Amino acid sequence: MNPSARDSAPQRQSSQSGRILARLADLGLILPQPAIPVASYIPTRLVGGILYVSGQIPSVEGKLIAQGLVPRDVNLEKARECAVRCVLNALAAAHSTLTDRGGLDAIRSVVRVGCFVACESDFTQHPEVANGASDLLVSIFGDSGRHVRAAVGSSSLPRGAPVEVEVAFEVA
Amino acid sequence: MNPSARDSAPQRQSSQSGRILARLADLGLILPQPAIPVASYIPTRLVGGILYVSGQIPSVEGKLIAQGLVPRDVNLEKARECAVRCVLNALAAAHSTLTDRGGLDAIRSVVRVGCFVACESDFTQHPEVANGASDLLVSIFGDSGRHVRAAVGSSSLPRGAPVEVEVAFEVA
Amino acid sequence: MNPSARDSAPQRQSSQSGRILARLADLGLILPQPAIPVASYIPTRLVGGILYVSGQIPSVEGKLIAQGLVPRDVNLEKARECAVRCVLNALAAAHSTLTDRGGLDAIRSVVRVGCFVACESDFTQHPEVANGASDLLVSIFGDSGRHVRAAVGSSSLPRGAPVEVEVAFEVA
Repeated sequence: MNPSARDSAPQRQSSQSGRILARLADLGLILPQPAIPVASYIPTRLVGGILYVSGQIPSVEGKLIAQGLVPRDVNLEKARECAVRCVLNALAAAHSTLTDRGGLDAIRSVVRVGCFVACESDFTQHPEVANGASDLLVSIFGDSGRHVRAAVGSSSLPRGAPVEVEVAFEVA
Repeated sequence: MNPSARDSAPQRQSSQSGRILARLADLGLILPQPAIPVASYIPTRLVGGILYVSGQIPSVEGKLIAQGLVPRDVNLEKARECAVRCVLNALAAAHSTLTDRGGLDAIRSVVRVGCFVACESDFTQHPEVANGASDLLVSIFGDSGRHVRAAVGSSSLPRGAPVEVEVAFEVA
Repeated sequence: MNPSARDSAPQRQSSQSGRILARLADLGLILPQPAIPVASYIPTRLVGGILYVSGQIPSVEGKLIAQGLVPRDVNLEKARECAVRCVLNALAAAHSTLTDRGGLDAIRSVVRVGCFVACESDFTQHPEVANGASDLLVSIFGDSGRHVRAAVGSSSLPRGAPVEVEVAFEVA
């Protein structure tokens, strides 16, 4: 991986650059570049030992991987994949913020996941969608990746995203 | 109450087992068994003196007490009862987590309640539903049960639940 | 401004009463009276250095400035104005709580904004609505006003509000 490529390349994650990045690589996952803030809000805020991360939508290099309601426009499997993508985007934001503390290795545990699913009134499988986020966090962080969660339906989400995920991490 | 009965019996709450459990009994309420986690998420997470509890749906022994939208399928009074049930489930999870610290007596205050109501676009009485949760917490904990709250509408909730309640407690 | 007028008058904000109130005045904004709690929940809760504020709707002296769905009943510009109003109401609640600590000057940073927009399934501009809240906080607090955010759609909100905003502040 070429460390001089900045804009579209994934973040550096050589084996020596951290335990959690190595774990991501084992899982076949590449940490994306953190999204550039487009408004007055910021990707993360660290207060009192908790790193709050802004709600993430399932975008790759600025483009959503799916759009619309679950399951009308986006099937369950794809929605689950969206939740995974949201978590990767949250991890990218966290890693970038925590650079001076060792990146993702500074995360002691995952505290909370909020998962919003854009859906109609007869949808009931919010937990199955949210499991995409939860299972990934446990795959990466082990027992300390286990977190509290609220999974709910939304009438719609920013840019037509099918899923939005908000994460709070405990930082060492 | 038979302390050897484990699976379906309510949690032990004899008068000597705690001030808050005694208060629940005074109110004619029985703390249910905590729900068994069915995914990578967990019922509670204690970080920095705050016990975060996962979003609860109004289930009794694994079955929802109502399903659908408020008020189309579930009337206001029943929705309010759902909010009460969600709080009892949250208390059960908290009590179970706090066993080594004296159970619910370790709770210093209630910090925040998030109340999601599954409803259509013309529903306006989210506060009346959420009051089921808020009033119960104040009945149990007194002034320290008073909390901040966000009550909002959802297009639908997990398993078709009419209400989902998320609680954060301050722990001594 | 007459300090003896209590019920409908804005909160006292003479130049000597604080840096942040002066900044509000510079922006042409007047801090409203805090809303009177109408239920078991309370406007704010201070725990572990974080001041949590209850979800605010865009009311002025108890009356909503708009009602219904965005954009069906309330256009984008008005929705953005609603988000501004919600933040002013949150600041009023915070100022009132923090009186003994110097009011709004006790706020070290804005931690998190949750913005709920009442809308239908084809709405995508939640961020544009939420920017009303975010931009105002940064105008008032500068860089320390920058926060994490989750902006999502709701099927409906209390009293028919088009927007609800929840804020958490870090307090010195």
